[in-house]
Amino acid sequence: MSQIIKAGLVGVTGYTGMELARLMVHHSSMELVRVTSRAEAGKKLADIYPFLNQLPLGNLVITQPDPADLAEECDVVFLAVPHKTAMGIAAVLLDKGVKVVDLSADFRINDKATYEEWYDVKHTEAGLLSEAVYGLPELYLDQIMGARLVANPGCYPTSAILALAPALSGKFIETEDIVIDAKSGTSGAGRGKNLGTLFCEVHDSFRAYGLPRHRHTPEIEQEISKLAGTDIIVSFNTHLLPIDRGILSTIYTKLTGEMSLDAVHQAYTDFYSDKPFVRVLPKGQLPETRFVKGTVFCDIGLVVDPRTNRLVIISTIDNLCRGASGQALMNANLICGLDVDEGIPMAPMMP
Amino acid sequence: MSQIIKAGLVGVTGYTGMELARLMVHHSSMELVRVTSRAEAGKKLADIYPFLNQLPLGNLVITQPDPADLAEECDVVFLAVPHKTAMGIAAVLLDKGVKVVDLSADFRINDKATYEEWYDVKHTEAGLLSEAVYGLPELYLDQIMGARLVANPGCYPTSAILALAPALSGKFIETEDIVIDAKSGTSGAGRGKNLGTLFCEVHDSFRAYGLPRHRHTPEIEQEISKLAGTDIIVSFNTHLLPIDRGILSTIYTKLTGEMSLDAVHQAYTDFYSDKPFVRVLPKGQLPETRFVKGTVFCDIGLVVDPRTNRLVIISTIDNLCRGASGQALMNANLICGLDVDEGIPMAPMMP
Amino acid sequence: MSQIIKAGLVGVTGYTGMELARLMVHHSSMELVRVTSRAEAGKKLADIYPFLNQLPLGNLVITQPDPADLAEECDVVFLAVPHKTAMGIAAVLLDKGVKVVDLSADFRINDKATYEEWYDVKHTEAGLLSEAVYGLPELYLDQIMGARLVANPGCYPTSAILALAPALSGKFIETEDIVIDAKSGTSGAGRGKNLGTLFCEVHDSFRAYGLPRHRHTPEIEQEISKLAGTDIIVSFNTHLLPIDRGILSTIYTKLTGEMSLDAVHQAYTDFYSDKPFVRVLPKGQLPETRFVKGTVFCDIGLVVDPRTNRLVIISTIDNLCRGASGQALMNANLICGLDVDEGIPMAPMMP
Amino acid sequence: MSQIIKAGLVGVTGYTGMELARLMVHHSSMELVRVTSRAEAGKKLADIYPFLNQLPLGNLVITQPDPADLAEECDVVFLAVPHKTAMGIAAVLLDKGVKVVDLSADFRINDKATYEEWYDVKHTEAGLLSEAVYGLPELYLDQIMGARLVANPGCYPTSAILALAPALSGKFIETEDIVIDAKSGTSGAGRGKNLGTLFCEVHDSFRAYGLPRHRHTPEIEQEISKLAGTDIIVSFNTHLLPIDRGILSTIYTKLTGEMSLDAVHQAYTDFYSDKPFVRVLPKGQLPETRFVKGTVFCDIGLVVDPRTNRLVIISTIDNLCRGASGQALMNANLICGLDVDEGIPMAPMMP
Repeated sequence: MSQIIKAGLVGVTGYTGMELARLMVHHSSMELVRVTSRAEAGKKLADIYPFLNQLPLGNLVITQPDPADLAEECDVVFLAVPHKTAMGIAAVLLDKGVKVVDLSADFRINDKATYEEWYDVKHTEAGLLSEAVYGLPELYLDQIMGARLVANPGCYPTSAILALAPALSGKFIETEDIVIDAKSGTSGAGRGKNLGTLFCEVHDSFRAYGLPRHRHTPEIEQEISKLAGTDIIVSFNTHLLPIDRGILSTIYTKLTGEMSLDAVHQAYTDFYSDKPFVRVLPKGQLPETRFVKGTVFCDIGLVVDPRTNRLVIISTIDNLCRGASGQALMNANLICGLDVDEGIPMAPMMP
Repeated sequence: MSQIIKAGLVGVTGYTGMELARLMVHHSSMELVRVTSRAEAGKKLADIYPFLNQLPLGNLVITQPDPADLAEECDVVFLAVPHKTAMGIAAVLLDKGVKVVDLSADFRINDKATYEEWYDVKHTEAGLLSEAVYGLPELYLDQIMGARLVANPGCYPTSAILALAPALSGKFIETEDIVIDAKSGTSGAGRGKNLGTLFCEVHDSFRAYGLPRHRHTPEIEQEISKLAGTDIIVSFNTHLLPIDRGILSTIYTKLTGEMSLDAVHQAYTDFYSDKPFVRVLPKGQLPETRFVKGTVFCDIGLVVDPRTNRLVIISTIDNLCRGASGQALMNANLICGLDVDEGIPMAPMMP
Repeated sequence: MSQIIKAGLVGVTGYTGMELARLMVHHSSMELVRVTSRAEAGKKLADIYPFLNQLPLGNLVITQPDPADLAEECDVVFLAVPHKTAMGIAAVLLDKGVKVVDLSADFRINDKATYEEWYDVKHTEAGLLSEAVYGLPELYLDQIMGARLVANPGCYPTSAILALAPALSGKFIETEDIVIDAKSGTSGAGRGKNLGTLFCEVHDSFRAYGLPRHRHTPEIEQEISKLAGTDIIVSFNTHLLPIDRGILSTIYTKLTGEMSLDAVHQAYTDFYSDKPFVRVLPKGQLPETRFVKGTVFCDIGLVVDPRTNRLVIISTIDNLCRGASGQALMNANLICGLDVDEGIPMAPMMP
Repeated sequence: MSQIIKAGLVGVTGYTGMELARLMVHHSSMELVRVTSRAEAGKKLADIYPFLNQLPLGNLVITQPDPADLAEECDVVFLAVPHKTAMGIAAVLLDKGVKVVDLSADFRINDKATYEEWYDVKHTEAGLLSEAVYGLPELYLDQIMGARLVANPGCYPTSAILALAPALSGKFIETEDIVIDAKSGTSGAGRGKNLGTLFCEVHDSFRAYGLPRHRHTPEIEQEISKLAGTDIIVSFNTHLLPIDRGILSTIYTKLTGEMSLDAVHQAYTDFYSDKPFVRVLPKGQLPETRFVKGTVFCDIGLVVDPRTNRLVIISTIDNLCRGASGQALMNANLICGLDVDEGIPMAPMMP
């Protein structure tokens, strides 16, 4: 690479910001030159993230989020701020010629009304919705490479869409009655100071939450409907795991006819044959969140139950890496003309 | 109580044995007089369970499992040994006039052939199957009180059957397409020395296992079919949680017609109105495993999703207490003429 | 018991309040009739603690902390509020003839100046300091039984003082150079909404904190100086464990002369021979926090290292039970004329 | 790099073997060409480590440990087998001209008699003891670069020696009365199938173990005695943390005279000024195991307590990475002529 890509990160204090900082330590073609936080501006990054002590990135000074400054210094900017906040910043940056990878939900839903219904806010930049590309590289590689604005997928949707894509596009499962039982590590709940995510409220316990209207529902339905070529309504249900990272989605579907595990497995393997970050596991193996921790892999295990003629699909991702910042970095690589896997870790820490 | 019931425990070294020992510390009408283990015979109970140091129970000497000795010393015996091992011991003890609460699967399945198919062993005491009572007090209270032999329910079945009973007996959900997504703490995997349950293999990870043929399937199907009055086949799927105790089952059903959450909630509340150990949570509340830890409560949360016309039932129990030894103690209380709740803890440790 | 003692709890929303609520579920001679919280007044206790659903205590309505009301309704009041807040409430309640068990630090330090130096606030009720009894039953049983105001010991001090008492009163360790390396579960950090106690900031990590001036230092020094009959300065150092409950203190001392483990063990056993809640473990056994979880036991393990002529004392308690609310309940029992162990659990949940 | 270094790994199934496999995924100048295991020979590496599915390393077939084969195929071999087993393999490999990094204790102790006393086995290759270099790069960089046989340091000794080196070589702490209170994650206990390391025996608990004669004691004493120029006896005490990885050592020392934190901090900073993998934290900061997880950093926090004139040194490492395989890889890099940090990760996963 003759020239280093200069990147900015708006919202460095949350877990997605922290994760992007981690990944950038080892990226040799892209460099973080701006990180912003209203609350922590003026500090060095190592002051809030001591794991960066004595690393070059640790000396970067946190700034106030100033679009003009970001536009001047950066080729590409990651938005790791809440939905509603992101849309305005994105519009300004694009206007100034900067590429944007938005980790919020603001540009994921193609339909303005659907967004406004589920997120309960006005969309003030709806003109950008048609331009934004949904940043799932396995489905939209070409569009991403040509994009100015990438809507980085949600964590749950990433795990659900990748798990369902081969079966729906292959039309061998029914489009009705799909049930997604999803479980996420606690980093997915964010880094806000909430009673419900204190150590002693989460540790050694397990619970469901958000039923029956989790906001990732329309995003999943939008993408799997496109894959199936018909409108799909899913039952999407979320749970909180006492682990740091990881999503495991157990997805219950009905086969349209009799179909062997061999045939299902072959269809999945074919679908992902040239997509190295989705691993269809050998028959009989089931995924575990630890096998993908810290990586962008999506592992998929397949179970055919002849008693019920169901196909049960189990997928795992790391919610912070593949489900947020790792995928954002893949997208940033792509829109900046780099290889998709530059700076992307391939091996989880185990144990 | 004029006289203390004398109890024996065959198989004290596993987690169900350990849990029964814990419960008996505070039982004022029943006393453990025999605890057995082939491997640890000769030691005092406090030697293997230091939490019993300087408590009277800690001085009890572990013996070899000798049915004649147990029959002579005990009014009632708990069998906390693996299936297949339990059936023979139960037969001998019953023959000698001792009451038996069997925590294994040996007498849970009414049909010999079904048992032998799923457990892959011959049933050598099938003559006792018709006499054995399924020890779920909410469903079989009267039969338990008159029983000599109680088949203590499995942990997953307890959570699933209690969750489904009101809906199936009330006939407002379809009997097809029931999906049970169950998650259990690691104590459910037993105390054997296995690689898969080492701390570093379980901690900070999550996985499914046993799909699609977990052995608790026929037990669930047997009981919910009785409740519904028709044969039911379920999709039953299990996962391993990085917590010590607790089962949370998320159960996906379809309402037979439109039905409000109010109506569903009322039906559940009515069904369990005189059964204090099942708590139908207030509308809008969802259960958490920590709220039942160490108790025999089964907490049930109800969600009606109008988008899919589904009733999602979420139930939690403590797999070791309600799912094993606590329920066994309830059953022992009942067959010995004590109040069902003697020595039963009502408050979990939180946090 | 002819009459139920009526108790109040000021500050029910923290972990010590939660723990006292848990314990009171099974207390048959004392009843909580008032629980207070400025933020949650008006709710039922089960609304904030769902584990109390459908238990009688769950229906108790939380009130504003009103000393006049408390005095009218209660025989004894537990103060589970921060230091500085507690002192004023205590004074009013005592004035109205109510007995008080204060879980804060306000009355633990006999010397006003020392308190003010370490806690950095004025003591406005110093007149009560000479009357307050330090509520460690193993050392002050008689004084507690006659007290109106009990200063409930801190969690770390309980573990340290009980561990050192036999050696210091027996004068077989040096009073200089005592080092206490203490580790506490996260519930000890309270239930406030802090970044540092979020699940993802604590889980799977370990750290020291508060060095070199933890506020429990003068409390430990005060009590062990009395035991030794000479002023002692200790090195007291604290760490945060990724567990819910439990303190383990490893205490490094030097033997004044050569002394065998047998002799040390005998001295400890003698010292605690009639004090059933301190368990001197058999030689060669070391304590684990899980063996005391949810109980008021203090387990003590002893190690003599001939290479260094050191006695290493390891003690464990449950910081919330023995280190706070369980010990407070023991004290309340004593000042109300009940047996010290009424309503006190003896068996931890394991696993 | 013109040529890829070919490496072998004897003993791939333990946690140190697993960790080395993880690290080698991203090493661009060294390649694993042999991995051995008596029990798993014939399988592909991905069969036992599913995180390697579809990575090139995952296709490597596990072989029986055959020194002749290893010698033929490898430039350097890592020995990740138990002490006593390692010494013989090392001798054969060296004889055949292969370089060896031994992760066991077999060549760490210079004195044969001391080794035999603490490890309770005969040393059959004592002739190699004088040649073996203790593989702590901060202390022995030049010797390592010229070595054929590197004795990779133990995990606890790494954390203790690096923490004490500046103070002992600077002669500002007393050499008597050093107390090391060390806490390790459970991966340090190995991957054997033991009751004591089952999830339910470790999770949510904490304990000391191995007192007063942990085998790492003589290794620590040997190295710190060299640094101090006098024989030192330490009190070394170990505890088991319910975390996967990480060692935190709290080390209690006495300053020889009055010395400010500024001066101590300066001495430490100077000592490690050109050694980038030891990070002396800014004054007032204390280390946490999570900040070094998965890396070879050793973080050091310094506390001066004027009340006791003590210097408390707190150090953290990752026991599997810096304490075993990561340091082994640093050593292998050095003896093979590569940069010490090739393939060494710099950023931990947080959370």
